[in-house]
Amino acid sequence: MTMQKHLDFFLFLGSTYTYLAVNRAEQVAARAGVALRWRPFSVRSIMIEQNNRPFVGKPVKLSYMWRDLERRAQRHGIPFRSIPDYPNDSDELASRVATLAAMEGWCPRFARAAYALWFMENKDPGSIDHLAAVIESLGKNARDVISRADGQEVRDKYAAETEVARSLGIFGSPTFVYRDEVFWGDDRLEDAVDWCMSH
Amino acid sequence: MTMQKHLDFFLFLGSTYTYLAVNRAEQVAARAGVALRWRPFSVRSIMIEQNNRPFVGKPVKLSYMWRDLERRAQRHGIPFRSIPDYPNDSDELASRVATLAAMEGWCPRFARAAYALWFMENKDPGSIDHLAAVIESLGKNARDVISRADGQEVRDKYAAETEVARSLGIFGSPTFVYRDEVFWGDDRLEDAVDWCMSH
Repeated sequence: MTMQKHLDFFLFLGSTYTYLAVNRAEQVAARAGVALRWRPFSVRSIMIEQNNRPFVGKPVKLSYMWRDLERRAQRHGIPFRSIPDYPNDSDELASRVATLAAMEGWCPRFARAAYALWFMENKDPGSIDHLAAVIESLGKNARDVISRADGQEVRDKYAAETEVARSLGIFGSPTFVYRDEVFWGDDRLEDAVDWCMSH
Repeated sequence: MTMQKHLDFFLFLGSTYTYLAVNRAEQVAARAGVALRWRPFSVRSIMIEQNNRPFVGKPVKLSYMWRDLERRAQRHGIPFRSIPDYPNDSDELASRVATLAAMEGWCPRFARAAYALWFMENKDPGSIDHLAAVIESLGKNARDVISRADGQEVRDKYAAETEVARSLGIFGSPTFVYRDEVFWGDDRLEDAVDWCMSH
């Protein structure tokens, strides 16, 4: 009997390129027979700690990022309508809902729905009304989910996952990890899966 | 008769990931029937202007970059010995020699030799003795080449190429450009070549 390998997928729902990863990582991993473990965390906290703000005050790089993301989406057959507002979810509420969803096994569906709201409708998944609609569309009780995402258990889990990410040397989202090997960026997904398969 | 397409390859010899590009871009482009135009420029000036210093004061990201570069080198069959000293070439002398080399048609050979010195022997290609040895190994007169690289004509060309890069919205090295479409990073080389072929 062969044990299935697991690749950790650290994600932050306010990250731009993570839009690509939530829409293709599962398929790429599955093709290789690898299971993904979705692990929401606060990359924003880590970036602030490390003074690593790739786009703040850098309009040329920011503009390029959107063009690159649009082209990469096209390359992977992922829809891209137009540049949505950024940054968003200032309280990281959507990210904490993702944490709860990961605890209960519905993180992939939630993450994709939250990103569709952001990228396709240009609505902030951190705003309670929009977020509630996304949660309800998944057949969950929005009031209950949001209340728990604001509660201590989920906040503690979110902080603990952020600490795991910090201790692994993670500084961006998406990041893929197999054992202690870290791959940053949607564009390293294939490298990460290959590494997972060959180690 | 079909006109061969040209892809512009903007490079800075003090950039780490550009090590990968100088060792594989020509082959990737040639397989697609695309010609590369090697265009040395001062990405350092642009980064300072834009307050875009991806590794300065960011040890976690710096450490990741080297690990990623080593893995990418392995993936592409490019030798990687150990992490060399960085940054180097504070006067951008090696980059200006690359400018002269581009004017005379020997930039690819020079860039590969300068990077081999840096990455394989951990010697600064900006130091005159090491640089002279590289130039002589290519059958050129080192004293003459370095003197011209320090002269006004080459400095002006280097500044003019940097201004072209700036006006295109380039902020990193390597960058590949077809018409006004910009692709940043060795990991976007294939995207750039595909774009060039299909437009």
